[in-house]
Amino acid sequence: MSRYFLDHIGRMAGYVPGEQPKGGGFLKLNTNENPYPPSPRVAEAVKLALDDRLRLYPDPVGTRFRQAAAALHGVEPSMILAGNGSDDLLTILTRAFVGPTDALAYPSPSYVLYRTLAEIQGARAVEVPFESDWTLDPDRFAREAKGARLALTANPNSPSGTALSVDALGSIADRLDCPLVVDEAYVTFAEGDAVGLVAAHPNVIVSRTLSKGYSLAGLRLGYLIARPEIVEGLVKVKDSYNCDTLSLAGGTAALEDREHTAATRSKIIQTRTRLIQALRGFGYEVPESQANFAWATNGPPAAKTYEALKERKILVRLMRYHGHPDGLRITVGTDDEIDRLLEVLGQVLPQIR
Amino acid sequence: MSRYFLDHIGRMAGYVPGEQPKGGGFLKLNTNENPYPPSPRVAEAVKLALDDRLRLYPDPVGTRFRQAAAALHGVEPSMILAGNGSDDLLTILTRAFVGPTDALAYPSPSYVLYRTLAEIQGARAVEVPFESDWTLDPDRFAREAKGARLALTANPNSPSGTALSVDALGSIADRLDCPLVVDEAYVTFAEGDAVGLVAAHPNVIVSRTLSKGYSLAGLRLGYLIARPEIVEGLVKVKDSYNCDTLSLAGGTAALEDREHTAATRSKIIQTRTRLIQALRGFGYEVPESQANFAWATNGPPAAKTYEALKERKILVRLMRYHGHPDGLRITVGTDDEIDRLLEVLGQVLPQIR
Repeated sequence: MSRYFLDHIGRMAGYVPGEQPKGGGFLKLNTNENPYPPSPRVAEAVKLALDDRLRLYPDPVGTRFRQAAAALHGVEPSMILAGNGSDDLLTILTRAFVGPTDALAYPSPSYVLYRTLAEIQGARAVEVPFESDWTLDPDRFAREAKGARLALTANPNSPSGTALSVDALGSIADRLDCPLVVDEAYVTFAEGDAVGLVAAHPNVIVSRTLSKGYSLAGLRLGYLIARPEIVEGLVKVKDSYNCDTLSLAGGTAALEDREHTAATRSKIIQTRTRLIQALRGFGYEVPESQANFAWATNGPPAAKTYEALKERKILVRLMRYHGHPDGLRITVGTDDEIDRLLEVLGQVLPQIR
Repeated sequence: MSRYFLDHIGRMAGYVPGEQPKGGGFLKLNTNENPYPPSPRVAEAVKLALDDRLRLYPDPVGTRFRQAAAALHGVEPSMILAGNGSDDLLTILTRAFVGPTDALAYPSPSYVLYRTLAEIQGARAVEVPFESDWTLDPDRFAREAKGARLALTANPNSPSGTALSVDALGSIADRLDCPLVVDEAYVTFAEGDAVGLVAAHPNVIVSRTLSKGYSLAGLRLGYLIARPEIVEGLVKVKDSYNCDTLSLAGGTAALEDREHTAATRSKIIQTRTRLIQALRGFGYEVPESQANFAWATNGPPAAKTYEALKERKILVRLMRYHGHPDGLRITVGTDDEIDRLLEVLGQVLPQIR
């Protein structure tokens, strides 16, 4: 490591994204990508944008995309901010609200990136443990997060797949003196969402991505919904042209094809039910999931199962959290993919118990 | 502005990107976009990437793109880092090297974003004036930048279009105890580049964009060239998937079509010569430009000329720097576009002198 880096950057380990195998032939159930293709309108919209616009800077705030997102949620376009994936938005939020040595609070275990964001900023990560049933006690969360400049909650949460109720999120927001970001990356597969909270709670910010529900992880596009006075300030912190012309065009088409999203969602939810039941049958504990993955713990040894699957060209995510048993986070694939996974698990598990 | 923002974010004005008129019919000579279309191979490559890759996360480091950039410069792929435009890279560099209250040094007047980057980071902007002939005295620069954690130079520089010699950049790098970023956004139109300095100077980092020389401002893609130990550290700070699949595919094709780039470059350089001579004929001082724009000052009043041109649907950039006369930064368009500009200038200037 070069000596020029800030000390806290030199010391940090860095976020490790899920494996993207370069060789072919892998069944990827490790990074919660959607197994179904995006709306065919996406490719059409991208092709139409391959014109003189390529050589021009994009619209800095993605006006058309913003309008499409606003229409989807019944809010004003001034309440929408587009980002280069929701990671870009989480980075902007951290830089806008959290100074070095300030506290950034989030429940634990959750999205590993939250700690990385605190580390890059030189901030203090305050991890508030979930209750054993994956709920949060609003009073306890607010007490432990006291003084924090920003609170983040993934809802549905990763790795558990569980979701806090909208009421619980509202209670937490009421008790905090900082913005509460509800990271709804997986909300397409859940029963409710927190967008309605923004009207009554000036500190609630909802972030979305097109990576999961819209099958567009390759496009890097997300957005957030917040009060206009928050969006205005965040615009100062984002890169001027943070979203490119092709992604904005494709993303707008994706948001507008609501039938495609609904159809994909319904297939994934059905397969999820079957996956969870089968994993429980193999002896794992699996909480009810509101996301496009299942979290399997306390069954056959996770690390050995991960290795055995990988040998057979099936990738799932082995996750380790301090103070918790290791677990496997398994993406809900197509029915055929999950059949294959369950078949292989049936073969390998008897040998590694 | 919401009260949740960090004080220094609340106070800052925010970078204002050049106007992108939404109505049609404007001749845009204000944001240094390339007037010629990108290589036709770009659209082909993007169309080919509109497949199953859309739903998958992109390669976090853009291996193919990295290889193409490395081949172009005769360096190892480990010395290349791709970014979501060079703005993304400048942001990553600032976050990696400069803490709050630390100093970030750059010559002045230069790219206005440098001050904004310092402001977002809560850092101190140290502006070292150019000499009157747009050179820098390495000893003076190093003295004034003493203690800085990062130095940035746009080379060629905006708004002047002038470039420091590679020797001068090497002398500055030798005298600094921090990284020196040579921001080569406009280098396609210049006579030399600083990539060769990286071998002898471990603190030199060269940044590039595909926005100008490759006519791809809409794609948001750039890269930097630095020692592997610097690239490694920067990877920890960047968003995991900062470049999308379509931009990486299109950008790789653009880098590989060297003939197209050379042809476009040569047309722009010819038109630039003609534009500069004509502006001087109108009474402006215009330094020799190594970029795709000309900087006109000390002639007919800049603000009035800007307004008169805008009324006639020609956009140029009016730039104001403390302690300097106002100036017009005018992008080198096609020959027809510059003919039109000069015709209109011929009409309006006699009335506003």
